[in-house]
Amino acid sequence: MIGRFAMRGFSTAGKKKVGFFGLGNMGFSMMRNCISHGYEITAFDVNEDVLKKAEELGAKIAPDVKAAAIDKDICFTMLPNTDIVQETRYGSKGIFEHAKENALIIDSSTISPFASRKMAEEGEKLGLRIADAPVSGGVGGAANGTLTFMVGCKKDHFKDIEEFLKSMGQSIFHCGSPGTGQTSKICNNLMLAIQMIAVSEGLVLGEKLGIDPKILSKIIGTSTGSCWSLNSYNPRPGIMENVPSSNNYEGGFGVSLMKKDLSIVLDSAAEVNLDLKFGAKAIEYFHELER
Amino acid sequence: MIGRFAMRGFSTAGKKKVGFFGLGNMGFSMMRNCISHGYEITAFDVNEDVLKKAEELGAKIAPDVKAAAIDKDICFTMLPNTDIVQETRYGSKGIFEHAKENALIIDSSTISPFASRKMAEEGEKLGLRIADAPVSGGVGGAANGTLTFMVGCKKDHFKDIEEFLKSMGQSIFHCGSPGTGQTSKICNNLMLAIQMIAVSEGLVLGEKLGIDPKILSKIIGTSTGSCWSLNSYNPRPGIMENVPSSNNYEGGFGVSLMKKDLSIVLDSAAEVNLDLKFGAKAIEYFHELER
Repeated sequence: MIGRFAMRGFSTAGKKKVGFFGLGNMGFSMMRNCISHGYEITAFDVNEDVLKKAEELGAKIAPDVKAAAIDKDICFTMLPNTDIVQETRYGSKGIFEHAKENALIIDSSTISPFASRKMAEEGEKLGLRIADAPVSGGVGGAANGTLTFMVGCKKDHFKDIEEFLKSMGQSIFHCGSPGTGQTSKICNNLMLAIQMIAVSEGLVLGEKLGIDPKILSKIIGTSTGSCWSLNSYNPRPGIMENVPSSNNYEGGFGVSLMKKDLSIVLDSAAEVNLDLKFGAKAIEYFHELER
Repeated sequence: MIGRFAMRGFSTAGKKKVGFFGLGNMGFSMMRNCISHGYEITAFDVNEDVLKKAEELGAKIAPDVKAAAIDKDICFTMLPNTDIVQETRYGSKGIFEHAKENALIIDSSTISPFASRKMAEEGEKLGLRIADAPVSGGVGGAANGTLTFMVGCKKDHFKDIEEFLKSMGQSIFHCGSPGTGQTSKICNNLMLAIQMIAVSEGLVLGEKLGIDPKILSKIIGTSTGSCWSLNSYNPRPGIMENVPSSNNYEGGFGVSLMKKDLSIVLDSAAEVNLDLKFGAKAIEYFHELER
């Protein structure tokens, strides 16, 4: 399968070499779009089955992080959490030790903005160019190459980073210095989490008071209660097609991922002595949902 | 001053007669647009100063509810709360007693959907055509004739009601049977109240973590955290012009009005045994804001 981008006359001689770390639901699709865009991929993942599939698509595969990092123009990580990103970057077998000078080290995992900023400081000292670039758009956006990237990096580095991320996404925002990409992502997901609950409470109230939830969604969608959760991800089963609520809650952004992001939100808020009443209440809410 | 609608060839002979009750910030502007549209207005309000101003614009003025209701094709109320709407409609001097048969009795106040539905049942028995038609769009929308009306009424009555409301608004939605207009309005405002808090928490977190709130607002405005409060009513001073947060919190939809609407939300939810965790938390939040 080839992504939506056809090869655009990249010469083999000019192919940029990318170490690609993390081939989960998101990462695998993103890697495919990189290949379609003419990047030379060397992939690493702890799951050997998925590495075999990557090989079938034309990626080289590496036995460990070190082998995937050496001699690459770009090292790109798409991993589950802060600890694993740190593990992949640090230590005698890590990316920081083995990446070539001036390489772009880009992380699209959603992790702590503090950890992200700290790693950037350390990586920059080693002569690397570091970016945090978490994404919005989910599995669908990863497959279609329509992700939004929120990038935290030094201003001078943004152009090269943007060029690479365009192979996987549609909108590439420079949010500010390292860490601000993660900050944007968690602030977005904090708003999203609370808005999802707001929409759910509003729709269930309306229905219990006797209004058709389709009509109510349409009306509020053009009023001051309008938001993405209502208009594009309606939580009431049967109002929209192609959303998890109408498909037995399959696919989409699951409760456990939301809880993970809200944990990062609350940890980060604590670091700056900020009390987020609704953020704290939201994580309780999602916790109850999961039980 | 003339509203945005010019006279459109209404003949004096065909002028519909309207009893207009309640000339507050919203009501006065709405009345002006009715006059511009060729309706013959007889106004009543407890504030005599505002009645004089109405007279200057060409309205007849009435000394009491009864005088304003008699012989009118339409009786329109725009009043502060459920009690005052009931007072204006019921009793020996009220609208129900004195309106002519088949008159349209339309209420655009935001009040309890239960009270609204009950009044509709009683009014319909008397041979009147009743609608609840609360609005969204605020003082600006009232002045410009761009309000959104959420109408609860019998299907057969909607066409005539819509024709009248078009003189004051742009979008006129039929939500369902009587009471569903109020239901739509309070469900919208429940979502809005919670979303406002979500946006505030997200923006303050972002700022404390070091991202420019203008950049953050722009990015989230195109992402999954996007909502009206963020895009059109940003609560962070200095991001948008012409919103209360950038104008010393003057104008706009005040905290006390939001609290009033949330009270209706929670009372209505209690009637149907529904526990709205975030709605309840939101009213506490606005209560603290007010202190």
